[in-house]
Formats: sequence, C-alpha cells, structure tokens
Amino acid sequence: MIRASWIARRAGDAVRTQMHYARQGRITEEMEFVAERERLAPELVRDEVAAGRLIIPANVNHPELEPVAIGVASRCKVNANIGSSAVTSSLENEVEKLRIAVKFGADTVMDLSTGPDIVATREAILRASTVAIGTVPIYEAIERVADPLDLSAELLLEVIEAQARQGVDYMTVHCGIRWHHLPLAQKRLIGIVSRGGSLTAQWMMAHRAENPLFERFDDLLAICRRYDVALSLGDGLRPGALADAGDAAQFAELATLGELAQRAWAQEVQVMIEGPGHVPLDQVELNVEKQIELCHGAPFYLLGPLPTDIGAGYDHITSAIGGALAGMHGAAMLCYVTPREHLGLPELEDVRQGIVAHKIAAHIADVARHRPGARERDDDMSRARYGFDWDTQFALSFDPDRAHELHDATLRHQAFRTAEFCSMCGPKFCAMRISQDLSAGACGRPSRGAVPGQLLLDEYAAK
Amino acid sequence: MIRASWIARRAGDAVRTQMHYARQGRITEEMEFVAERERLAPELVRDEVAAGRLIIPANVNHPELEPVAIGVASRCKVNANIGSSAVTSSLENEVEKLRIAVKFGADTVMDLSTGPDIVATREAILRASTVAIGTVPIYEAIERVADPLDLSAELLLEVIEAQARQGVDYMTVHCGIRWHHLPLAQKRLIGIVSRGGSLTAQWMMAHRAENPLFERFDDLLAICRRYDVALSLGDGLRPGALADAGDAAQFAELATLGELAQRAWAQEVQVMIEGPGHVPLDQVELNVEKQIELCHGAPFYLLGPLPTDIGAGYDHITSAIGGALAGMHGAAMLCYVTPREHLGLPELEDVRQGIVAHKIAAHIADVARHRPGARERDDDMSRARYGFDWDTQFALSFDPDRAHELHDATLRHQAFRTAEFCSMCGPKFCAMRISQDLSAGACGRPSRGAVPGQLLLDEYAAK
Repeated sequence: MIRASWIARRAGDAVRTQMHYARQGRITEEMEFVAERERLAPELVRDEVAAGRLIIPANVNHPELEPVAIGVASRCKVNANIGSSAVTSSLENEVEKLRIAVKFGADTVMDLSTGPDIVATREAILRASTVAIGTVPIYEAIERVADPLDLSAELLLEVIEAQARQGVDYMTVHCGIRWHHLPLAQKRLIGIVSRGGSLTAQWMMAHRAENPLFERFDDLLAICRRYDVALSLGDGLRPGALADAGDAAQFAELATLGELAQRAWAQEVQVMIEGPGHVPLDQVELNVEKQIELCHGAPFYLLGPLPTDIGAGYDHITSAIGGALAGMHGAAMLCYVTPREHLGLPELEDVRQGIVAHKIAAHIADVARHRPGARERDDDMSRARYGFDWDTQFALSFDPDRAHELHDATLRHQAFRTAEFCSMCGPKFCAMRISQDLSAGACGRPSRGAVPGQLLLDEYAAK
Repeated sequence: MIRASWIARRAGDAVRTQMHYARQGRITEEMEFVAERERLAPELVRDEVAAGRLIIPANVNHPELEPVAIGVASRCKVNANIGSSAVTSSLENEVEKLRIAVKFGADTVMDLSTGPDIVATREAILRASTVAIGTVPIYEAIERVADPLDLSAELLLEVIEAQARQGVDYMTVHCGIRWHHLPLAQKRLIGIVSRGGSLTAQWMMAHRAENPLFERFDDLLAICRRYDVALSLGDGLRPGALADAGDAAQFAELATLGELAQRAWAQEVQVMIEGPGHVPLDQVELNVEKQIELCHGAPFYLLGPLPTDIGAGYDHITSAIGGALAGMHGAAMLCYVTPREHLGLPELEDVRQGIVAHKIAAHIADVARHRPGARERDDDMSRARYGFDWDTQFALSFDPDRAHELHDATLRHQAFRTAEFCSMCGPKFCAMRISQDLSAGACGRPSRGAVPGQLLLDEYAAK
C-alpha cells in the first residue's frame, strides 16, 4: 500500500484535496506518481490539477490506491463498470470482475451494484482495488427506501458521506438536471435513459420540486472536500438514441454542469463531467468542443459515445469507435461498454472484451494526440512483426493469451512459433520475408547471389 | 438469376461496361437495381458511374450477381476476404465462409486463395455468389511458376483473362508500384507489407525492370473492357506500420494510381483505388482527402485503416475504428479485418466477427454522412428499446442470433422476453420504464393518481 504513508503524513492538514495542495504550489506524492507514469513533468501535473483540467481521484481513506491522472494532458483512460443487480451476480463474482478489469488495463472501476449487499460488495472491491473506485450513490439510497419517491436530500447526503468514509474515490451525482430542463426532454424519442437521471426526474415531478442535490450542492461539496472525493457530474439528460443527440435538454444540462464545476473548484473539490451516450459520429467533435467550452476545461468522461443505436451484441465495438474519436478530440476517460450492453449485465468475458476494445480506442487516441511515448509500443510491435518474433508480438498485444490462442489454433506445432511466416499467407507469399530479403539485397535467385542494399541504392540514384 | 436476361439483351453490343452505357446516357438494369437499393435517383447513379465516382462491378459472365454500387454517393460498403492458403482450408469451407459473409451483410467478397485448387475454389464461389467477387490474380500466377521470379507479364495477363472469362467482377492489380518508388520504401521500419506489392517489387529488383503490369496496362484494360471487370488499383506500397504511414512511397504510388485511373476511364473501364493499411487516426481524414484529390474522385476502398499496430486478436475492432472515420470522410468501401489478422487465416467465426464489426463501422459512416434513410433503422431500434419489444430489438441488430443469445443467457425464462426491464438494471432501476411513466404523466405514487402530460407542460410554462 504505497499510499498509506503519504496519507499519514498529511493527517493534520485542514484540507487534503489534491486540488488544494496544487493550488498551494505543492507537488504531492500522488502527482509525482502519475507524472512518472505519464512521462510528464510533476510541475505540469500540479498546474493542471490546480486549473481543474486534470484530476487525481484519491480518497484519503483509500490507501490501497495507485493514483491515476484523468485529464487532457495525460493518457486517455478507461473505466470499467461492474456491480451486481437485483437479478444477478454475487460479491465474489464482482471482485473477480474487478480482477479481470484491472488485469486487462482498466484505469478506474465503477461499482454500480444495485441489488442487496451493496455496502459489503463495495467494501470488498475497495479493499482489493489498486485502481480508483467510483460509485453512483443514488443506487444505494434507493435500496434504503420502500418507494423511490421517499428519497430525500438528507438520505442522499448520508449515503454519500458513508461511501466517502469507506474510501470511494469518485462519485457520480446527477445534480445538473434542473426543473426547467424537464419539458425539454419530453420532446424526445425515448426520453431519459440515465438511471440516476430518471429517478431524479421522477422525484422532481412527483414532488413538484427542484433537484434535491442541486439545492444541497454546497453540503455535497463539504463532504467531497473532507475526503477528497472527486465529483463526476452525471449527465442525467444524456441522449439515449441518435434521434435525441445534441438536443436542447442535453446542452442545457451541460451548461449547468459547467456552473457546478466552478462551484466545486471554489471549494477545491476535483470534478469531471460525464458525457453521452448515443451520438452520431459527425457530432462527436462538436460534443467535446462544447463540453470544453461550457465546462471550462474540466475533464470529459464519456459513456461511449455510441454512434449507432443498432449494435446490440457488439456495442463494445460501437462504443470503441465513438470513444476513439472523442479521445482524439480531447476526452479524458472512456467508460467501457460491453458486448452485453442493452441486453444484460456484463459477465466476466464481457468485462474482458469491453476493456480491451476501449484500451485499443484510448491508445488510438493517445497516438493521434501524439502523447509522450504513446507510439513506442506500436513501433516495437511492428519490429517484432517484421522479425517474426511471435512471442514478443503476443506480449505487446492488449490480450496476450488471446493473441497466442488465435495464432496457435491454426499453426499448433511449437515449430511455427519461430516460423518466418504465418497461416495467413503461408511461406511462399510472406510479404515480410520478401521485404526483408529486399532490404538485405537478397533479391535475386540464390544462385545469382545477394546484391548488397547500398549497391542497389546507388543504382537507383544513377537512374 | 436476375441478371441473366439483362446480360442476354446486350449480347450484341461492342462495349458492355457500365461506364460505357452511362456515358451513352443509358440507365442499365444494374443502375436501376442499385438506385432502388440505395434510394437514389437512377439518373444520379448513371451520372456518378459516367464520372467514375461510383462503380458497379458486374462482369458480363457473372449472371448470379445482384449488383452493388461502390462510391461516395451510395452507402459505405464492406468487403470480406476469404480464401484458402497452402497451409489451411478447403473448397467446401470457403463456400461456407462466403455463405456466412453474405448472411452477415458482406457487400462484396474477395477470394484470396493462394494454395492449390485456386481455379476450382473460385468457380464454386462465383457460381454460389450473389455478391460481387474480387480476386488478386497474381496469387494464381505465382502458383503456376516454380519460382516467383519466373513470373511474366504474359502469364499475368493470361491469368487475368481466364479469371475475367470465369466471371470475376473486380481484380486487384499492383500496377502502381514503379521502379523509382522502390528506394522510398527502403527507408521504412517494415518495408513492403502488401503480398502483391512485395512479389512485384522482388521481381522488379531481380530483373532490374519496370513493373510488368504497368508496362502492359493497355493490354490489361482491353481485357477489363471486354468483360467489364472493374479494376481495384492495389496499394502495393501501403504502410504496414504507423511509423511508415503517410510517407513518400505511399503518396508517390497514390499519384501513379490517379494517372492509371484516368487511363482506365479513357477506355470506359471502371476503377477504384485501394488504400492503407496502418494509419494514425489523426491522419485518416488527410488520407481520404489526398486520395480524392490525386485520384480524381475514384471510389476509395480501404483496408482498415488500422490506427494502431498493437491490436492483435482484436484487429477487427482496430479496423472498424479507422474504417468508420474513413467512411465518414468519404471512403466508399471498407475491407474487413478479422480478429485473426496478423495471426492467421480467418475461420468461420472470424468471418462473422469481422463482417459485423465493419457493417457497424460502415453504418456509422452512413449515418454521419446523412445518407438517405440511413438512420431509420436506428430510430426503429430506439423505439423498440423504449417499448421493451425485445424481439424487434434482436431483429434490427446486425447479428440477431448473438443479441438473442446474450439477452437470454442472463434472463433465460421466456417471460423475460416480454418483461419491461432487463438484467442490467432490474425492475426497480429501469430508466426506460420510469421515462415512459413520466411522459404518460404517471409520475406520482399510484395513489395520487396520474397527472396528464399536458397539464405538466402547462405547469412548466407558468413557472
């Protein structure tokens, strides 16, 4: 637990949020840790945290954490949602999902459990997790009342405080959905698709009252400031269909989220903004630009986006397509979507598929943004490919077991692991081998002897 | 065989290419057929074919074909590569791959067989195929010689003519790789990765001679004109690694392909241009723009592109990401990549995965380009989702069996097929149900009675 001693040393500080320290000009161990991982200067990390453009979700009660940076200056991150629901899964299974998610590269994990045993499941996940853990507190609050309409601001804040004490690093709260936004969403093809958003809207309509967490936002910030819980300002009005993308409801809420971000920063509370959802590919860049503008550069955390509604069974791919483009334009973190999205709760293999798809998307974004060192692994892979070094190729892929398995399924014998061809082309058609021969100058029949590469170049130059 | 009578009626015509008829102002049955499928005016299709911006690969000896349009005005298409190699597969297996590819929506299929039985395999595929079939004739030519260096222009043209007679609708030829391009490729990290390109380069270097098919391009065009074989001008120098993307070799060849396209058009031969390959995401738009400029609007047929080199085992996803963006910027057809790319020859399940991933990418591009009717299926899906109509959701997805299977794996009982929730949220948290209640005005406790939606809207308006 690398963080235990860091936290202990700050026990007496009145405010312990990363943003507070950054604004004091102090570089914390967390900032140093992420700076090294990201190959960024610690001073840059500090300045980005101070400006609110980068967050390091790191609850003072989560010593198991290895901190992560989420922001436009750092690599694009991937979050995996896990969690039981009333109809499926168990505590042990959720911890196993956490293990799989981290193994395949999840940068953060959200525990979205909704069934019974929420508290115990979260405790098991937190204590087992080296990655930042996020939650959606309204899911637990709802379980504590007989009717969702019995929810109250007090109960929500009580749950949030309890989760903060437990060590949750960031929380999704749907504070941005306002009373005057609701009619805007009534014009939609499919209304409100965020669970937290729809529960909040239902409560507001039934009670003819403003969003309780919007009204009590200052109390919420006080809790976050105490434990350094980062807020993930949820987009309760995100579009759930292409037909509803980019409408007035979505952008009205986004503007509110921008105001809330500024109020959070005034309290030195770290904050990121959640984004859609279902968005046509030609609107992805616009979504990122609008978020940066309306939310003053706060990190953008996207659920997808899904650029089509019809990918059921393959929505990890749909989402990876939208996510890569969003990442290229500046999104800070992608929430994975699994093949089971729209169909059921993800199981272990879905978690693996979802993570790998989005790690690929995030990496593609890192390369496209020319982030420090991002392309080195690609170049190493290409060199290994050119050199027929199969074991290195497996090792450099996102899922070495899978790559190995696919290769060996066709060419089972151990000898093929060192063969200078694969089953795609067979020995006669291997472009890599021919290309190697060409650059070595061995381009003629063996009987003609090899022609040194330099000689050939001279010959070209003379033409 | 809808095309048999169309072809028969034109038996006496001196030239029977679609481009020839289009330039004569004539709308062929093939143009009418694709116009209806694409919801385009037949006159527009004719004008696009005449201008070379759209092709309808339709060999006069392929009556089994249901014609397809490939061009920027029509929907983005997907090609599936199948074919045996020296170390794997059989004729029956290849026909089964064709069946799977067409079932999941392949718009064209390329038979890239390289092992023995090439001719018989292709005959079986052609006679069983309602989609356009493409080949790479050099693969067959190579099988006919003891040493690849014994290849000759005569042999290549002989093979091309035989394949044209058999009914192949389009052929990839590597005519654009020129003698003076070769040194440019020697500076690369991994050289030449196109099989046809590397074989051609090897031959050119060994014989110290210009590309034989470039030299005999007019003879090649004469064959294409006779059978209406569309040319797919191969990018023998496409980058095979991010490090090699956008280099002088790639664009020098692309400029040559643009010249060859104009020579083809002068003979009323249909032509499309093949594109890379491995390309960082931030260079995808540039690639499409340069192709349109250098190749005068000829349809762009992309292999991927793959925006990272490290996706082994998941390269269908890597490629779908690059392909969706390329399609949005105007690529006409995406060549699928399967999960087994870089690892082995695709098997049946790989074909399915590859096709679905790229159908999603192509559809995302169609929606992003606002092509006629493209979004209707998305809207229907969203309505079905909102209405808890699971069977319609399965039916509207790209792979109904898979969607059905994933849904039922969690909620096995038949009753759940009509349940107003799924295992993701369970009944209590279903945003869709809540949203329905809200728009129906049933937003309070049942005991309070439903509030009509209009009343709520009035109440808002008064605030």
